This record gives sequence, C-alpha cells and structure tokens, in this order.
Amino acid sequence: MNNQDKPMAEKNICPVEKTLSILGGKWTLSIIRQLSPGAKRFGQLQKSLKGISPKTLSSRLQELEKEDIVAKKIYPEVPPRVEYSLTPKGEGLKIILQEMVKWANENIQ
Amino acid sequence: MNNQDKPMAEKNICPVEKTLSILGGKWTLSIIRQLSPGAKRFGQLQKSLKGISPKTLSSRLQELEKEDIVAKKIYPEVPPRVEYSLTPKGEGLKIILQEMVKWANENIQ
Repeated sequence: MNNQDKPMAEKNICPVEKTLSILGGKWTLSIIRQLSPGAKRFGQLQKSLKGISPKTLSSRLQELEKEDIVAKKIYPEVPPRVEYSLTPKGEGLKIILQEMVKWANENIQ
Repeated sequence: MNNQDKPMAEKNICPVEKTLSILGGKWTLSIIRQLSPGAKRFGQLQKSLKGISPKTLSSRLQELEKEDIVAKKIYPEVPPRVEYSLTPKGEGLKIILQEMVKWANENIQ
C-alpha cells in the first residue's frame, strides 16, 4: 500500500510523516552523514559539524538514541571514552544519504 | 570523487552539506512530499501539513523557489489561482522520498 498518496486525514499513524519529522530536524541528516563511515566521539562530531553548539549536538544525539538510530557506547577507560555509531536501523538510512549525495552532485553547482 | 568522506576543512563548497541544509529545514521534506503527486494550491498545502503556520509555509515555499526546487504559477483568473509544483530539479528528489518511505515502512511501528 502506498501511504504517500493518501490524504492525511485517512492516516492515524503515519510512519512516513514520523520519519520526515525525525530526519527533518536541523543537523540530523548531517549527524547521520558524519556517522556513516563509522563511530565517532562527541568532540569529533562537533568538529566536523561546523557551527553546531554542544547543547544542540547533545540534544540531537539523544533524540537519535531514543529512535534507535544512533547507539552510544561508553568504554570504561580513564577518562571514559564515549563513542556514537549508527545502529542497524540507522545503517538503513545510508541509502537515503547516498541518493542525496547523487542529487546534490547533479543539481548543486 | 566521493565528497562524503572528506573532512569539512578540505571542502570550500560542499554540495552535499548544502543539500542537507536545504532538505533539513523543518517541514521542507513534508512540503516536497505533498507536491510529489502534482501541483497544489497554498490552501491545499496548508491543510495537508497539519500544524504549519501560513507564515512558515510561505517562507519555506520561497526558499524552495529560490533553490529552483518548487515553481509558483499564477493563473490570471478572478480571483487569481496560484499553484505550486516541483520543478524538474525538484522531481529528482522523489527518489529520496521513496527511499524514506521504504525505510519508514520497514522501521517505524
């Protein structure tokens, strides 16, 4: 069944709207993109996302953890090392990013 | 060349970051989704995007027009009819939305 063409009123819960609302958060797609090649520490993420505040990055990561898109792993070292990575569910978003890269390279400058 | 894995510092202009910043605006993906089946009037868009304010919808549509993703057509009727539709460049985004729909149906509820 194609949910995309159904008027909103017919849908009680719409997985697509939920997805758009998760991915449409400012910085969210960029964070997922930065985690695509592999796990990163908070500081590495912040450095690669120019202009993001630690508060926003922290809040976005928490949202993505809640949605089971990003996993946080704490390594018991001194000082503790914390790494963020994509979960299997998050890995499934890579195809979307690949399509965005393709579109970007064909359409932007 | 794969821009995706290059550190930010090496990129002067990054088409992918620009794309993520365009598509990552709140409501932007939902607006593109609503225009995917065909042209819509402002009121139809507002009705289908539950919770959007006319001011935000108007501002998002202007941004998308500026990026040549959405076209505005004014029909010289009384009163004038105004319709918004995807440009060929905007049509290219449908594949991204299709991948999102697929991911949503497999991963959300």
